[in-house]
Amino acid sequence: MAVLLGSGSIPAAAQERSTDATWIWYPGDYEIWLSNKMQARRTERGAFFPPLWRYYSPYALVTFQKHFTLPEEDVVEIVAEGQCKIQLDGAMYYGDPSRVHIPAGAHHITVKVYNQEKTPALFVRGKHLGSDASWEVTYEDKEWIDETGRASGQSGTEWQQAGSWNFDKKENKPSEFRLSVTPQYATNVTHENHGFIADFGKETFGYVRLHGLRGSGKVYLYYGESEEEARSVEACETLDEITVGPDMKKEYTLKDSKAFRYVQVRTEGTAQLDSVSMLYEYLPLEYRGSFRSSDELLNKIWDVSAYTMHLTTREFFIDGIKRDRWIWSGDAYQSYLMNYYLFFDNPSVKRTLFALRGKDPVKSHINTIMDYSFYWFLGVYDYYLYSGDEDFIKQIYPGMVSLMDFCLQRRNENNMMQGLPGDWVFIDWADGLSKEGEVSFEQLLLARSLEAMSLCAGIVEDSEAADYYKKQAGSLKEQIFDAFWSADRQAFLHHRVKGKTTDKITRYTNMFAIFFDYLDAAQKQGVKQEVLLNDEVQQITTPYMRFYELEALCALGEQEYVLEEIRDYWGGMLDLGATSFWEKYDPSEKGDEQLAMYGRPFGKSLCHAWGASPVYLFGKYYLGVQPTAPGYATYTINPVLGGLKWIEGKVPTPGGEIEVYCSTGKIRVRSTEGNGILTFKSKTRPVCKEGKITRTEKDTYQLQLSPGTTYNIQYKYQK
Amino acid sequence: MAVLLGSGSIPAAAQERSTDATWIWYPGDYEIWLSNKMQARRTERGAFFPPLWRYYSPYALVTFQKHFTLPEEDVVEIVAEGQCKIQLDGAMYYGDPSRVHIPAGAHHITVKVYNQEKTPALFVRGKHLGSDASWEVTYEDKEWIDETGRASGQSGTEWQQAGSWNFDKKENKPSEFRLSVTPQYATNVTHENHGFIADFGKETFGYVRLHGLRGSGKVYLYYGESEEEARSVEACETLDEITVGPDMKKEYTLKDSKAFRYVQVRTEGTAQLDSVSMLYEYLPLEYRGSFRSSDELLNKIWDVSAYTMHLTTREFFIDGIKRDRWIWSGDAYQSYLMNYYLFFDNPSVKRTLFALRGKDPVKSHINTIMDYSFYWFLGVYDYYLYSGDEDFIKQIYPGMVSLMDFCLQRRNENNMMQGLPGDWVFIDWADGLSKEGEVSFEQLLLARSLEAMSLCAGIVEDSEAADYYKKQAGSLKEQIFDAFWSADRQAFLHHRVKGKTTDKITRYTNMFAIFFDYLDAAQKQGVKQEVLLNDEVQQITTPYMRFYELEALCALGEQEYVLEEIRDYWGGMLDLGATSFWEKYDPSEKGDEQLAMYGRPFGKSLCHAWGASPVYLFGKYYLGVQPTAPGYATYTINPVLGGLKWIEGKVPTPGGEIEVYCSTGKIRVRSTEGNGILTFKSKTRPVCKEGKITRTEKDTYQLQLSPGTTYNIQYKYQK
Repeated sequence: MAVLLGSGSIPAAAQERSTDATWIWYPGDYEIWLSNKMQARRTERGAFFPPLWRYYSPYALVTFQKHFTLPEEDVVEIVAEGQCKIQLDGAMYYGDPSRVHIPAGAHHITVKVYNQEKTPALFVRGKHLGSDASWEVTYEDKEWIDETGRASGQSGTEWQQAGSWNFDKKENKPSEFRLSVTPQYATNVTHENHGFIADFGKETFGYVRLHGLRGSGKVYLYYGESEEEARSVEACETLDEITVGPDMKKEYTLKDSKAFRYVQVRTEGTAQLDSVSMLYEYLPLEYRGSFRSSDELLNKIWDVSAYTMHLTTREFFIDGIKRDRWIWSGDAYQSYLMNYYLFFDNPSVKRTLFALRGKDPVKSHINTIMDYSFYWFLGVYDYYLYSGDEDFIKQIYPGMVSLMDFCLQRRNENNMMQGLPGDWVFIDWADGLSKEGEVSFEQLLLARSLEAMSLCAGIVEDSEAADYYKKQAGSLKEQIFDAFWSADRQAFLHHRVKGKTTDKITRYTNMFAIFFDYLDAAQKQGVKQEVLLNDEVQQITTPYMRFYELEALCALGEQEYVLEEIRDYWGGMLDLGATSFWEKYDPSEKGDEQLAMYGRPFGKSLCHAWGASPVYLFGKYYLGVQPTAPGYATYTINPVLGGLKWIEGKVPTPGGEIEVYCSTGKIRVRSTEGNGILTFKSKTRPVCKEGKITRTEKDTYQLQLSPGTTYNIQYKYQK
Repeated sequence: MAVLLGSGSIPAAAQERSTDATWIWYPGDYEIWLSNKMQARRTERGAFFPPLWRYYSPYALVTFQKHFTLPEEDVVEIVAEGQCKIQLDGAMYYGDPSRVHIPAGAHHITVKVYNQEKTPALFVRGKHLGSDASWEVTYEDKEWIDETGRASGQSGTEWQQAGSWNFDKKENKPSEFRLSVTPQYATNVTHENHGFIADFGKETFGYVRLHGLRGSGKVYLYYGESEEEARSVEACETLDEITVGPDMKKEYTLKDSKAFRYVQVRTEGTAQLDSVSMLYEYLPLEYRGSFRSSDELLNKIWDVSAYTMHLTTREFFIDGIKRDRWIWSGDAYQSYLMNYYLFFDNPSVKRTLFALRGKDPVKSHINTIMDYSFYWFLGVYDYYLYSGDEDFIKQIYPGMVSLMDFCLQRRNENNMMQGLPGDWVFIDWADGLSKEGEVSFEQLLLARSLEAMSLCAGIVEDSEAADYYKKQAGSLKEQIFDAFWSADRQAFLHHRVKGKTTDKITRYTNMFAIFFDYLDAAQKQGVKQEVLLNDEVQQITTPYMRFYELEALCALGEQEYVLEEIRDYWGGMLDLGATSFWEKYDPSEKGDEQLAMYGRPFGKSLCHAWGASPVYLFGKYYLGVQPTAPGYATYTINPVLGGLKWIEGKVPTPGGEIEVYCSTGKIRVRSTEGNGILTFKSKTRPVCKEGKITRTEKDTYQLQLSPGTTYNIQYKYQK
């Protein structure tokens, strides 16, 4: 990979202001370590419940290096998480690392850091020299090869660009990272004979605090996302037990964070307390995206979606906050997309992609789920499209190659993938959904993943690999059409078992084929009528797959229909009192049925990332903003009212934001970077003082946008 | 590897007495963790100096399982190093792990343990159920595949037999392991104006203790394996600085262990102390092998060799105790061999082999040295021959395969190995020794390694692989003879550069070919005359290669000549005051020259494992004991006096020992296990009451030995 790791990819910022410094590590290692810690915090009724897949660990011994030139003598402070060995221009440094004197001129510094318990990390700051992403790092060591004693580090050692986040002070040690907390108080307390139930007014997450503790005995806490769950001592998913004694302070904050809206508090013995409050725990993020419309219900749905997204955007993008609190690649993939229209927080995407990938050798699929390996590739692809971050692609590409090798080696004699021992073919939670044989949906995701590989191979300048993956993707797509596309039924069939394609149709392959743009116009219309709008095809009951189903319909111009679905489905959850969106919602279920899942009365998560898709749909298909080149270098705005009187909002871009207002008579857009094209339909000839509108076809108009200008268009909305 | 990991390989002991219990872990993981810790203890004049090669880490999350049947209800205590999740017959256990009630009958228990900082380890003990090597462990997890909730753990998960050592009490946590210590005192103290120099009488290792500390200021310690080194404040390799203050106790024990015979103590400020002593640190081992002879010098050489071996046999077999204190595969390989004739401590061999191998993927040679990868294979081969331990072969085989794959992938177009970027071709420390091109020595080691692979593939019942490696070894041996054997010169040539074999001859390939038995009788004699006994071929100056040179000569029956060499070379070190044997000895060097190495005045190690080879040579080629089947099922005894009046000693076997006495007129042998054959020459017809002696050829006799009998033979010694 040497070709990737040259100084060509040093960020400009790092070169200009080297006295800025940040903690650095082997890329992915801190993310893996932090995710191990976070995912091991799951408990089930008090019992430890770690993830069900392989854990990786950071390299315990790594070497950082930097070639640099000083205009004058510098006195550099070197701080490490771990023990460190410093070599300056190949010579061992025996002095005080807090004051390393380096004379003017060209130098080469290497710092070897060992840490078995935490991620080896380095912080260097002088007047001219500072640790940043321009430093290189390796877990190998062949520097001794150079018998002159100079640490050339060039003998076969693979160097990677260092990883970093936002630990910009030496005191901010990566291993000590904690999410932010702020106090929250119950909105209502109901006293019972056993104790009391505190209602915090909405779904929340954090550390319960006990106030006015006294006496001795036990305090029991039973958490509930619903009041029913908090009241169920026997069946609530999470609980805590605190032993109260004479030597205990009056105030006590629980060690472990929990997700809940309600907490039932019971005491035993002479233990008593006055009240409970909590420390709400969150990742500090700015809501850079926004959406408002003439429909208050949709506004409420957007707000609750955004809050659901924020609750599940933590150290990493997790599935839900009550139960697993794990990083599931398929769930995270939707979080990436929603993030681009809400926070546009690249570090959260990178942390999650690094953590999911782990290290080599690859012995099983991500989360052991075949489709989840593929979503990971799609996530890298989209991240590059939205962020334009080539440095990350260069860091992650080796991991992409080894994961893809693993996948391709598991293809059967038809070059297709089907579940092997140890593979979980998930697709969706749906009754009677068969995972048998060659499932067309999995092949479709593999084809898209191969396209992602080809793109990234190009970025790392491996044209041979780029061609190879392109060919693989092309031939697989042909195979998919040959094996699964039914011209009569205008749909992809579900799967092929022992060489025989069954006549079963499911929505999954068909809706993905639409927004992957694998179908021609006629085929798309066919799929729309025969599958998406056909009630005889098994309905989707998870917000997870609703996400894609509605996206497919939007891509086909069905925004008005989709709004009805959103009002109905997400509005349905709000009617049932949801303050965050759920893991699963089936309108036909009654009462407590809505709370059960996995055979447990309160097994269902009531705050699940994949429930927040309106954040993504409103931004991409109503405000209509989409990048058309990496990092929003170019983009399109195509506002669609979908039957609303007006919509208004912001979509974040890497360095700014795009503002869109659209009513039946007026469009207003403004951006801060990139070159955009506004496309819209109008019954009348539109008027705009700020730019020249061109007509592309009957009733369809375009306007070239440049950053910094506010464009006001008078027109007459047409569907 | 599933085929290997069945209950077929459960040690009998574990089956019979299941209430015995020991701490278990993923095989190799604890060894890797412990070696990381130990090897990071090196300091150079106070500066941290970790190893120059890749570090691996344990799996942070592993799952243990055991299928078992209880005759009655058992109450089991489960203790883990880390957080643990217990499942009994697939059901989550929420209760107290210190009292797990399990009813009579057949069961399946899985315990998942997470530990990021230390090796995840498990201890289980009940009346009938105890954790031991019969438990299985995996770092994968596909148990959820089983949708009934039962933890079948059979879906594609690779299980390994658990690793263990001797942590047989729940209190003996593996992570808290420390070597033993015992006080030692200086034999002589010389007071100087700056302080004093304490002489501990011989090379030793441990923690210096300061007595009668008072005042405030500094105490400086300068360590020396020689008095010259301890006196050299500027150039001694290791030192310590202790800050003394009012709040300090009178007694202080240094935190870090050091190797030394002399310590110079200096004080600064008002700091004073009365004296120093030390805590000698060692691995408790029984000297099961012994050797005595009619030559007191040789007896002394054996004693100092044994002590050198003990000092370097620690958490692992290390190179030397002063400087690196690292695990070098080439050095360790000799320690394995010496161990079989001194301690016969299998755990030390297994720990070292596991630690050296690390994990996958393999990205560089062991210690980054090509020859050291090959010695590792030879070490596994010999371990099996001496111990007969098939369970270990099954645990290590996957690591053998991946390391061999790495090696074979690095062969050039001639199917030979030559140094690639990042490879260190070491061979030996010798002036002007070329490592260029295809070095015959490396090919020879590879051939032997392929033979080891074939043997072990057979043990794990992979006959296809066994054949493959056998063929590879065979064809490589042919190539070696074609390319490097010179019939005219009766020797292997050193190397081939750019297709051209140079006419240079070195000893290395030639002497290894002899004890690998790759040469016919005539070729052996040729090599003996033209190389081994030819002073024009560059002499060897390291005990490291002297080890093999003398072994080759012994294998050719030159015991008498070899004894002269030993008296001369090892005796030479004793004459210079050695109390342990050195890293390098060149009789031509004068005075302080003997202490210098690596361009540093005291860089040379004066206690180096590879200096102890007489322990091995005396046992194998004078007492003449060698196994001929794994684990001494069969063995030979062929006593050789080599000019001595008498020799006497013991050679340890897996379950006992072989005693040998041999003088010019009498042989006495006794063993406790296995079937041995005594072979000897006699000028007269020998007499033995305890067994029937048969004559095999002129003057050569054989006696079949059975365990437990002492055989007394009257004869007349003949060379």
